[in-house]
Amino acid sequence: MLKGIAASAGVSVAKVYKLETPKVVITKKENCDVDEELKKFDAALEKTVKDIEGVKERAAKRLAADELAVFDAHLMMVNDPELAGQIQQMIKNDKVNAEYATEQVADQMVTMFESMDNDYFRERAADVKDVTFRLKCNLLGLVIPDLTSIDEDSIIVAHDLTPSDTAQLNEYVKGFATEIGGKTSHSAIMANSLEIPAVVGCPGVMDACKTGDVIALDALDGEVIINPDEATIQAYKDKAAAYAKEKEELQVLVNQETVTPDGHKVDIAGNIGGFDDVAGVLKNGGEGVGLFRTEFLYMGSDHFPTEDEQFEAYKKVLEGMQGKRVVVRTLDIGGDKKLSYYQFPEEMNPFLGYRAIRLCLKEQDVFRTQLRALCRASVYGRLAIMFPMIATINEFRQAKAIYEEEKAKLIAEGVKVADDIEVGMMVEIPAAAALADQFSKYADFFSIGTNDLIQYSMAADRMSEHVSYLYQPLNPSILRLVKMTIEGAHKNGSWCGMCGAMAGDELAAPVLLGLGLDEFSMSATQILRARKTINNMSYADAQALAAECVEKETMEEVQEVIKKRLGK
Amino acid sequence: MLKGIAASAGVSVAKVYKLETPKVVITKKENCDVDEELKKFDAALEKTVKDIEGVKERAAKRLAADELAVFDAHLMMVNDPELAGQIQQMIKNDKVNAEYATEQVADQMVTMFESMDNDYFRERAADVKDVTFRLKCNLLGLVIPDLTSIDEDSIIVAHDLTPSDTAQLNEYVKGFATEIGGKTSHSAIMANSLEIPAVVGCPGVMDACKTGDVIALDALDGEVIINPDEATIQAYKDKAAAYAKEKEELQVLVNQETVTPDGHKVDIAGNIGGFDDVAGVLKNGGEGVGLFRTEFLYMGSDHFPTEDEQFEAYKKVLEGMQGKRVVVRTLDIGGDKKLSYYQFPEEMNPFLGYRAIRLCLKEQDVFRTQLRALCRASVYGRLAIMFPMIATINEFRQAKAIYEEEKAKLIAEGVKVADDIEVGMMVEIPAAAALADQFSKYADFFSIGTNDLIQYSMAADRMSEHVSYLYQPLNPSILRLVKMTIEGAHKNGSWCGMCGAMAGDELAAPVLLGLGLDEFSMSATQILRARKTINNMSYADAQALAAECVEKETMEEVQEVIKKRLGK
Repeated sequence: MLKGIAASAGVSVAKVYKLETPKVVITKKENCDVDEELKKFDAALEKTVKDIEGVKERAAKRLAADELAVFDAHLMMVNDPELAGQIQQMIKNDKVNAEYATEQVADQMVTMFESMDNDYFRERAADVKDVTFRLKCNLLGLVIPDLTSIDEDSIIVAHDLTPSDTAQLNEYVKGFATEIGGKTSHSAIMANSLEIPAVVGCPGVMDACKTGDVIALDALDGEVIINPDEATIQAYKDKAAAYAKEKEELQVLVNQETVTPDGHKVDIAGNIGGFDDVAGVLKNGGEGVGLFRTEFLYMGSDHFPTEDEQFEAYKKVLEGMQGKRVVVRTLDIGGDKKLSYYQFPEEMNPFLGYRAIRLCLKEQDVFRTQLRALCRASVYGRLAIMFPMIATINEFRQAKAIYEEEKAKLIAEGVKVADDIEVGMMVEIPAAAALADQFSKYADFFSIGTNDLIQYSMAADRMSEHVSYLYQPLNPSILRLVKMTIEGAHKNGSWCGMCGAMAGDELAAPVLLGLGLDEFSMSATQILRARKTINNMSYADAQALAAECVEKETMEEVQEVIKKRLGK
Repeated sequence: MLKGIAASAGVSVAKVYKLETPKVVITKKENCDVDEELKKFDAALEKTVKDIEGVKERAAKRLAADELAVFDAHLMMVNDPELAGQIQQMIKNDKVNAEYATEQVADQMVTMFESMDNDYFRERAADVKDVTFRLKCNLLGLVIPDLTSIDEDSIIVAHDLTPSDTAQLNEYVKGFATEIGGKTSHSAIMANSLEIPAVVGCPGVMDACKTGDVIALDALDGEVIINPDEATIQAYKDKAAAYAKEKEELQVLVNQETVTPDGHKVDIAGNIGGFDDVAGVLKNGGEGVGLFRTEFLYMGSDHFPTEDEQFEAYKKVLEGMQGKRVVVRTLDIGGDKKLSYYQFPEEMNPFLGYRAIRLCLKEQDVFRTQLRALCRASVYGRLAIMFPMIATINEFRQAKAIYEEEKAKLIAEGVKVADDIEVGMMVEIPAAAALADQFSKYADFFSIGTNDLIQYSMAADRMSEHVSYLYQPLNPSILRLVKMTIEGAHKNGSWCGMCGAMAGDELAAPVLLGLGLDEFSMSATQILRARKTINNMSYADAQALAAECVEKETMEEVQEVIKKRLGK
């Protein structure tokens, strides 16, 4: 039995499919025919682009829009003249073989990215590895295993699964176990999205089994049992059945309201990255979309999407949601999210820099195009628009004025625009939380973005492992800022939602309920469990719990109080 | 008459000293004798180090410790094996003359830094220029003008003043005017510190005058008048006299208390970077030191300062302040402040990263050494210790426990430690402001660090010009966080000070007074003007004003209310 990290809940028992990627052995050849090597390289590059496009296409059938972004990053990288240019340069200058030049340039880039002691750059290093591995295999004529060929129930065992690997998983894959990785690695995120059990960070698992072995994968407790005896297999099959039953029981909640036994009603909505996610939200009983991240429309394009392109995208989502409210966040770009076709300024602290609404108020053409597309789409459903990264009332007033202008222009042009569009804002900057009662004079609603709110309130970049201990959603200071925001909204009759990770957190839910949060927006797969929690807790109790929590000193004390209340 | 930016208040009429720096013309020579060029370069490098050390030594007589840091940056750069190594490499590889190699490498580095569209890197570019200019002059045998030779009243006119230039200004320099620069450029900061009038960003001033001309420099209104007639000279002399008189009138306040007409007493203290600043605080009637930035002890050294080195430094300051309270901030390093002898992790957003107390709680040897030195020095005056960047109660408790441990160890060793040391914290992270009433159970006092508090509360890096409009000390959201902090302190009998730039802001002072701030700590030169403001405003009025301001919507509205109240 091996221990690892339970990265995506579930239990499976099945045969092992051991993913052994081809061993790439490269020898340096000197005095090569430069033209020939360049030709070889161009052909491999072209094939690699096609391969990635193929993977993306197959992946699009099962994955949500935001999870596809990784392939756009790969395509951008393989199409980047910098990478290809360096390799071609080396072939020309040193007259070496193409695969050797590719390896040298790749190693340099990976070393550079990995030496930056930071999660973000480590992800970039992983991207370079993934892309150049394909390049080298194509140069050497090696075949990368085709996971889509799996046609009986299997658990994949691998050193690691690249984004391209996970994107190829089909319905026969009942789980996977990997040597490396953590809860936030790509493979873990993908497993959650695909709802298959996964144990990652399980060193030794590759050596411990071979294709055809049977393993029990316990991704509730993070365990991998290799070739278990019959009794053990039965025990894990029972565990799997119990887990499946619990999931099934949640199904009865799909068409129910979210309401406490003492009659307090809230909404649970889903976060989406595009139309592909709409089905998941509806299937899981979402009462709307609390966050539509429009940046994927921009990041998956090689130009600022036109008004018509955006109109079609918004219309599809609004129609898909069948009259349920869709909260669309206007372009939230910058920070760690860049565009290939827009030059961001170099900043020392991009998370504290030129991004989101700050950029939209400067680049007004971009902003106005999006607002026009939204207004035009508004007649196809129930639209709410919100602006990200609002820090001051002047910013909100200015953004709203631009929206009003474009709306008025459209109406003057004879275009139909819904007359019930709500206009609100993200509360993710501490200054906005502190002044919520003033903002609510102008904003129809708030949506608390906890990831950023916590990051700024604690002055701690959640991407830096050195300070990640300060990411404390349940710290009383954060609860107080949330309380201020909700009370500020209600003071002027606005409603308050939350679309950050905290909204889907099981421990946080009772406190947020008690603080008066009106709408919880989360990943589709979290909706039913959250509904179960709320439908089983009296509002009066939740209020008492919340009042107690905001007077605590530390996150640990808050966690203890909640666990006691939940009987955990 | 030319217009420019008034960067340091005051008015002067005097003769022009036009600073013409040598024209450096470099021609490329090929096939040089490598050994000879390397020898030439080594000699020039050595002389440059000595020159900078000389400038620093002369500067130390007039400048404060934190203003000397720039020379340490220069010394670090000129001693950096990277810079010299690149130049030496080029001499070896390309067999070119040393001055050509120096220019090439310097240009590359400057271009790189300047291309980063960011104030911080632009300062680094200025440093490279300053240092390599000296190197090139030394290589070419050119003499850099010696400003210390000025021996009659003069106003310097220059393209720009480098830090090395300003450091050489003596008592005959009655002001300066430069072609380029802004309110936050080095030259402006130095002029303020030296209390000499300066107009910067005044294009054309070099062509418009020559050495020996007379000019009137009006650094109240940002004007330079060249060869004015007698009547004009008299008018400016009158203006200078009036300004001097106002300054003199402030002198009567030196030994007075800071107290409102209705009897509310507060303290006005000074911010210092080391012992050299103590005299300025006392001369300007400071009632203590509200912030002793100990990082300069570390930044001006090539090793972590030993316990004894620190003990001597703290003892000198405590004795110098003659029993007045000295609030010492423990090591606040990281972010944009680095050490040559410590490897910081690469982080994407250093301002949200591993710094200050976060580092000290990990590198406990460094922290314990500082705390021991402070405890030992405590018997020489009235010591208060505060921890920077506290975000959670656990961090504060942990830091205080380490302090208690070291104190107990010293006492057990028979060392005398004062029994009235106060232990407090900076409030510069929004989470700490929101939870101030809990923190004050443990902290004897708070000091609000407004620069960081505003930066985090607004999620805007004040060093990025793209979002600098969000640096809004008088935004009602910031005032509310300040209010929460002060009320939180008072709830448990702690006191609350402020040591950020806001404490010295004339518009902010009445509001801060009204919010109940107990201690205002600022640059020594701002103390008397602040005292005058407070001694002329009733506390009841200030309270009413503060109550009005926290209910406003925008910074602009707050400014308007205050100006109206002050009759401005």
